[in-house]
Amino acid sequence: MTFTPTDYLPYDFANRRHIGPSPAEMDAMLETLGVGSLDELIDQTVPASIRQADPLDFEKPRSERELIFQIRRIADQNEVFTTMIGQGYHGTVTPPAIQRNILENPAWYTAYTPYQPEISQGRLEALLNYQTMVSDLTGLEIANASLLDEATAAAEAMTMAQRVAKSKSKTFFVDENCHPQNIDVMKTRAAPLGIEVIVGDPETLDASAVFGAVFQYPGTHGHVRDFTGQIAALHEAKALGIVIADPMALTLLKEPGAMGADIAVGSTQRFGVPMGFGGPHAAYMACRDAYKRAMPGRLVGVSIDARGNKAYRLSLQTREQHIRREKATSNVCTAQALLAVMASFYAVFHGPEGLKAIAQRIHRKTERLVMGLEAGGFKVEPELFFDTVTVEVGALQGVILAAGVRERINFRKVGDTKIGIAFDETTREAKLEAVWRAFGLSFKSADFDAGYSRLPQEYLRTSDFLTHPIFHLNRAETEMMRYMRRLADRDLALDRAMIPLGSCTMKLNAAVEMMPVTWPQFSNIHPFAPADQVKGYTALIKDLNARLCQLTGYDAMSMQPNSGAQGEYAGLLTIMAYHRSRGDEGRKVCLIPINAHGTNPASAQMCGMDVVVTKCTDNGDIDLEDFRAKAEAAGDALAACMITYPSTHGVFEETVREVCQITHDQGGQVYIDGANLNAMVGLSKPGEIGGDVSHLNLHKTFCIPHGGGGPGMGPIGVRAHLAPFLPGHSHTGGREGPVSGAPYGSPGILVIPYAYLLLMGGAGLTQATKVAILNANYIAKRLEGAYDVLFKGRNGRVAHECILDTRPFDESAHVTVDDIAKRLIDNGFHAPTMSWPVAGTLMVEPTESEAKAELDRFCDAMLAIRDEIRAIEEGKIDAENNPLKHAPHTVEDLVGDWDRPYSREEGCYPAGAFRVDKYWPPVNRVDNAWGDRHLVCTCPPLEDYAEAAE
Amino acid sequence: MTFTPTDYLPYDFANRRHIGPSPAEMDAMLETLGVGSLDELIDQTVPASIRQADPLDFEKPRSERELIFQIRRIADQNEVFTTMIGQGYHGTVTPPAIQRNILENPAWYTAYTPYQPEISQGRLEALLNYQTMVSDLTGLEIANASLLDEATAAAEAMTMAQRVAKSKSKTFFVDENCHPQNIDVMKTRAAPLGIEVIVGDPETLDASAVFGAVFQYPGTHGHVRDFTGQIAALHEAKALGIVIADPMALTLLKEPGAMGADIAVGSTQRFGVPMGFGGPHAAYMACRDAYKRAMPGRLVGVSIDARGNKAYRLSLQTREQHIRREKATSNVCTAQALLAVMASFYAVFHGPEGLKAIAQRIHRKTERLVMGLEAGGFKVEPELFFDTVTVEVGALQGVILAAGVRERINFRKVGDTKIGIAFDETTREAKLEAVWRAFGLSFKSADFDAGYSRLPQEYLRTSDFLTHPIFHLNRAETEMMRYMRRLADRDLALDRAMIPLGSCTMKLNAAVEMMPVTWPQFSNIHPFAPADQVKGYTALIKDLNARLCQLTGYDAMSMQPNSGAQGEYAGLLTIMAYHRSRGDEGRKVCLIPINAHGTNPASAQMCGMDVVVTKCTDNGDIDLEDFRAKAEAAGDALAACMITYPSTHGVFEETVREVCQITHDQGGQVYIDGANLNAMVGLSKPGEIGGDVSHLNLHKTFCIPHGGGGPGMGPIGVRAHLAPFLPGHSHTGGREGPVSGAPYGSPGILVIPYAYLLLMGGAGLTQATKVAILNANYIAKRLEGAYDVLFKGRNGRVAHECILDTRPFDESAHVTVDDIAKRLIDNGFHAPTMSWPVAGTLMVEPTESEAKAELDRFCDAMLAIRDEIRAIEEGKIDAENNPLKHAPHTVEDLVGDWDRPYSREEGCYPAGAFRVDKYWPPVNRVDNAWGDRHLVCTCPPLEDYAEAAE
Repeated sequence: MTFTPTDYLPYDFANRRHIGPSPAEMDAMLETLGVGSLDELIDQTVPASIRQADPLDFEKPRSERELIFQIRRIADQNEVFTTMIGQGYHGTVTPPAIQRNILENPAWYTAYTPYQPEISQGRLEALLNYQTMVSDLTGLEIANASLLDEATAAAEAMTMAQRVAKSKSKTFFVDENCHPQNIDVMKTRAAPLGIEVIVGDPETLDASAVFGAVFQYPGTHGHVRDFTGQIAALHEAKALGIVIADPMALTLLKEPGAMGADIAVGSTQRFGVPMGFGGPHAAYMACRDAYKRAMPGRLVGVSIDARGNKAYRLSLQTREQHIRREKATSNVCTAQALLAVMASFYAVFHGPEGLKAIAQRIHRKTERLVMGLEAGGFKVEPELFFDTVTVEVGALQGVILAAGVRERINFRKVGDTKIGIAFDETTREAKLEAVWRAFGLSFKSADFDAGYSRLPQEYLRTSDFLTHPIFHLNRAETEMMRYMRRLADRDLALDRAMIPLGSCTMKLNAAVEMMPVTWPQFSNIHPFAPADQVKGYTALIKDLNARLCQLTGYDAMSMQPNSGAQGEYAGLLTIMAYHRSRGDEGRKVCLIPINAHGTNPASAQMCGMDVVVTKCTDNGDIDLEDFRAKAEAAGDALAACMITYPSTHGVFEETVREVCQITHDQGGQVYIDGANLNAMVGLSKPGEIGGDVSHLNLHKTFCIPHGGGGPGMGPIGVRAHLAPFLPGHSHTGGREGPVSGAPYGSPGILVIPYAYLLLMGGAGLTQATKVAILNANYIAKRLEGAYDVLFKGRNGRVAHECILDTRPFDESAHVTVDDIAKRLIDNGFHAPTMSWPVAGTLMVEPTESEAKAELDRFCDAMLAIRDEIRAIEEGKIDAENNPLKHAPHTVEDLVGDWDRPYSREEGCYPAGAFRVDKYWPPVNRVDNAWGDRHLVCTCPPLEDYAEAAE
Repeated sequence: MTFTPTDYLPYDFANRRHIGPSPAEMDAMLETLGVGSLDELIDQTVPASIRQADPLDFEKPRSERELIFQIRRIADQNEVFTTMIGQGYHGTVTPPAIQRNILENPAWYTAYTPYQPEISQGRLEALLNYQTMVSDLTGLEIANASLLDEATAAAEAMTMAQRVAKSKSKTFFVDENCHPQNIDVMKTRAAPLGIEVIVGDPETLDASAVFGAVFQYPGTHGHVRDFTGQIAALHEAKALGIVIADPMALTLLKEPGAMGADIAVGSTQRFGVPMGFGGPHAAYMACRDAYKRAMPGRLVGVSIDARGNKAYRLSLQTREQHIRREKATSNVCTAQALLAVMASFYAVFHGPEGLKAIAQRIHRKTERLVMGLEAGGFKVEPELFFDTVTVEVGALQGVILAAGVRERINFRKVGDTKIGIAFDETTREAKLEAVWRAFGLSFKSADFDAGYSRLPQEYLRTSDFLTHPIFHLNRAETEMMRYMRRLADRDLALDRAMIPLGSCTMKLNAAVEMMPVTWPQFSNIHPFAPADQVKGYTALIKDLNARLCQLTGYDAMSMQPNSGAQGEYAGLLTIMAYHRSRGDEGRKVCLIPINAHGTNPASAQMCGMDVVVTKCTDNGDIDLEDFRAKAEAAGDALAACMITYPSTHGVFEETVREVCQITHDQGGQVYIDGANLNAMVGLSKPGEIGGDVSHLNLHKTFCIPHGGGGPGMGPIGVRAHLAPFLPGHSHTGGREGPVSGAPYGSPGILVIPYAYLLLMGGAGLTQATKVAILNANYIAKRLEGAYDVLFKGRNGRVAHECILDTRPFDESAHVTVDDIAKRLIDNGFHAPTMSWPVAGTLMVEPTESEAKAELDRFCDAMLAIRDEIRAIEEGKIDAENNPLKHAPHTVEDLVGDWDRPYSREEGCYPAGAFRVDKYWPPVNRVDNAWGDRHLVCTCPPLEDYAEAAE
């Protein structure tokens, strides 16, 4: 018989797995919108003037299985050697239960930043544990919920010191024993701010000449020093002392707080977070209580809920870049939450005695290594060390490095005559002997005893740490697994419901994209591993680069920035370097529209630019006349403009090419913020419509999960003339000016966007963009009449998100945007973005991954809320004692007495809420003001944990 | 300074991860028990007469990291070739979201069999989907929730046919086109039951001479035949027609129901379940409605709860081996739940059009393969085929097989002149060309078009399937991920709370033990792959064998049995073969104590033994005098005795050696049921105290997770004289008589017990046993006074479990064991084993993995329940309207009106319940009787799914 094949494509990842609405659902949605086809809608929405001429020219999309094949071939080109390079990155043992139940669990990795505390109590507790751990280990009162990496954390500490130091000096001292990448990033950061950096021996520090100094502890070559004297001198001079400290070493060695340090930073990578060729890892920052309000980054604190029960939340939310904007000296607006959570669980798993035992094992093995090397006649440099030593080998350097490679060990090449060796938790006895062999010595592991440490007593830690009960839970895996599950269950993440956050693009993070992340060939690679061991990574990054360039219309790409804000910073630095290279020293003005994200002006300020804010018209668009006037006024001083496209108010502005042209006419460069790239992929290229630089949010548009507030990745694309000025890195050569500690930022997660691109193909990516726009317009249409959509394009369409105006309800019904957000929790939803870019509004972005049923559930919920508001407006229900004000409702509400003018049913099961599968928040509405008034940023006392210990 | 290392061992898996109570907790528990040390308790508990002389002599325990290293080295010895062997096992694409969210998710894999329906609604729904899928695909009304493998399912179908056929024949016809392993297992099963098996060409079937016949569809060499005629003839003769059908083929080909078949069986392996070198996979069985009460295995059905809401449950629970015991012809008491769940999600993911598209792709590729082979002059055997063909190659067989290996393809060697080729979902275009190359042909994939199938219309399926809405959900991964999460959240598994099921040993399934299971080197191996490709598996199985032998005192081991009951059966067959080999044909009597598990007599009956039940004394022990009398009475006819040690009533009987001696004195063999081996490991060896055979429940004692009701593994150990009589397998040579389709049963999960043994080491395993005994005795002690422990040893101690007598409460307070079980759900616990081995009791087994806090939480809950019972006894609360009778309480109870004489608080938060993290069952108490009266075993109609489709 003739065979009539079905036209169903079961392995079509784009249309069967990633894109939410089915073809039939899309038809229904298009009908609701009154358009005949998806392309008709796109024609109405995306101006012809910006459309790209040719479709994306990617090869055939891969099936999930083909993808895994291909990625495995790439992975196999990486070689996993034993790493003894140190320099801030160490082998570590991720407890398998943490890998499975946190890193590989969508309940954790698909969560958003815990801005809505009622649905984030689980990860807030984990992050509070992290802060407590950092505070304890460093001996400083306050710790934040993590920063991007150790190098940028050191730079943040430098600028923070400048903000708070009473010294008026503009000079900063950097210990020459800092890891080279830390020194380099601090230098990058210092230059545009006019900070002079002196790198030198701590013994030579002239405290009176600086506003602060930073010391690495232990030093990059292994030295353990006590900086108490230097810090006392700094204090004498009203300057600050900063210590970059290895948290593992701090379990044995005197802590920075005990030396008098004001700020401590460092990396918690070796607390169970794989190296991943450089990241992502969580850097920490801790400081004295006095400086807490100057600390960048997020801070988890303890507050109470409407019932007076303990509840966690993000404290002091008014962050640097938001309140100071163009005066900010930090643009940090994210963290490495998922990695911080892993590190915190590592500490909970091991407890203080476990961590100390691990550190002792490492130290004892290093001691034995040194005994053997010394017995073999080698001169080992640091008299006092923890886990790292440097050996003088003279002309033998090449021979020994090569012998190491034969043993599958990477040593660190130090200068031309020395070799660095760093031990870690993973160093096996057999490898100790292999090191000796590489040095031509044939000792056996048992030849040297470990009963001795050359560290004098006064260098050791005498204070307790991790004394809180949370670090003394029963640590059996059964208990730990349940603890992780309980925390996960308290939270609402993408694995349970849509997270319609405008500007955040909470799309599917497919399982297949995540899988290779934990393969050892990706996770166990040191960022400074020899090039011939990382061919897989190199090939992946090169191909990813090329695809992102094609997709954006740029000519070159840097993977270094670890977040969108870092991308902005790196992009503007690139522009400034370009101008300087042409002798355009005077170009400093950066035009930024008033409705820009707060990081834009903050990043410009950090690059030494003068921010000029331009107006918007009533419909939210850039005020072209004002823009032109200010550009012309700047003239030869115009360095750049920063715009977001489609705009932060969710519209494809028709004038974007003109804005770019005006800028270029004055010799300025155009920075297009890539936050909204999900509305452009396949339809329009920022590099074609006039952009010279953009950052790409790989964690928004390209499927890296948000991880509960990090990791992010913000690589930048540039046009060819800017390529020579991209950030360099000492390890990979090229120019100076790194913005991150590792050459490629966080390559451990680059496989995610790469997988996404291969799976989707060009047509799939383009279709995803169209459906993202369809979904947003569908929501806007369904809510028509109930909520005003604040801004629309010429044809009455929005782009991939829409802003709902809820300001009128404050007056009409005393209902705030907060009330609506909390009421949505009763419906089982994370709130849309609140009060940004316009105060008192909600910005909704569904993404292409949400199916029609979930969009409808959301619209039903929003319409029901509107009905409740109307009932208040009409006086049918009380303006204070109503479901909106009492939201979110908890089981505690149900169990207790009920004296409200609406029923339990009405309170708990509004339209759109699941019945059987309803999500119940663990706390009632959290009191933000109380929390800021009573700031507690470490784990609360024992009695509050009675429940946790149940 | 001198270095004082901490004595904390952070990587000690046994004492830091696997064993629940910390050293300090153990001290407190021992104090409660009034003993000075753990060893003192063990001395009081385990009779000196059975203690093993020497400690387990395993090498140093591995850390988790070392383990992964070692397993990776083993895995790398397996070579993953493209499999075209077919013969019942096929390459398949496990959707990554299913792998991550089901197979690798403790919420699914740590769940127990859904005997408590209120806390199992998620997996019951998934299994009901499975049943609906099987019923639809086969065209038969009733399907069960899976069987162990296709071969045993075929054997079960055979004995089921004998039970229900009106024909009095003792002869069964087997299509010679069945897979060889199916024929072999049916023969094994038939022989002891006196069933004569005729293997022949279906065309030669004499229907009047048989009680049933089984046909393979498509045949093992690829033939697609229509058995309508044969089945009609069978019906004419009052015999049954059975079809073993490939479910993938059934999406295109005429279904067994349309041929008139009475029973269909087969494997759902290729629905997304990795081959795993032979298992575990879910076999299916479907039958006509008329035969449903004769069907072995579990059957999920639909009922209602106390509020009248739809609720799922296991139906017709009074299974074969329980009610018929020594008259049973099936001992099946488990399923392959986890794998059935995976297969059901595979169908939900793809839907009927997806499955059909996949089948068409496979078929079209096979058609093109054949076109090429025929164009190349080869004779291809089946005129009509789906995905498998057999090629006549004459003397070239060896050359082509070798050429295949060079292409990394395994063909099937058929006879001496033929080669079998089976395509599957994973067959790539490149491999199609590689096959041609191996046959010396240089065609390109595009050379042959696919618009033609030689299958005539009348062979094709004309009926719809998977029409139920559940198979038409939106299949975007976002929606699917949430569906899997919602189902998981409805259930209570080990990842949330202790499951104190007596006799089930619900211990930790550590993440590190699970990880290698999904490595491709273990998962993507065909059971009949050439020996030189499976060296890793061979080494692992050999070493596991040796360790299990050392641990049990046996001399040889067979990994073949796929469950404990299968182990019993295999063990007794071994005994019978031994007797027969010595000419002891008359030895048929099997002595079994009255309190034995129902599978014991059922297994004996299936081996053709005559079961003689022996008495127990009042304290539950074997009545030695009765036992001796019956053994002596049997005399030369005594084949074996079957005992459980420690006994099913949770005590180490002092007389075990004597029981064995009595049996041996009469020439009988001793079968020691290994169900309770968790109380012996490291302390006592069944092979040393008199056992000749034991099965080991790898899913109880050795950490294979229960998977919501399977997989299990029940390998048997035997003493040397029985080793020659262990089950053989045609693939591995040796004697005949396989009990499973694959030579090593379910080797895909053997890495779990292997990992466990390596991680624990001898001392760790022994300590685990001691702590299991400690935990049980601690519970018994804490409940003293509130509940009578039914049986104790001489010193008042129990073994690793204890039986709580709840019978008095029925009279005193009208409280049943069921009421207590349901009330425990309010406390967040799975009930202990109910009414076994004594009706009206609860058997509690905490295992060593539970920490003291969880034990205390359970004891608090049980004591609070006792208080509630006392309040009824004292007339303080109503005997019918009370928390016990209304348990479990749901959120629905809270939301609605409350007119009960106790408060919501008292109802929902009894002692031991978590407050914030409370588990809420999705349904109220399920009505079992209603469900059996209204048996519905496929998905209920659309309107009931309004909610699921929310």
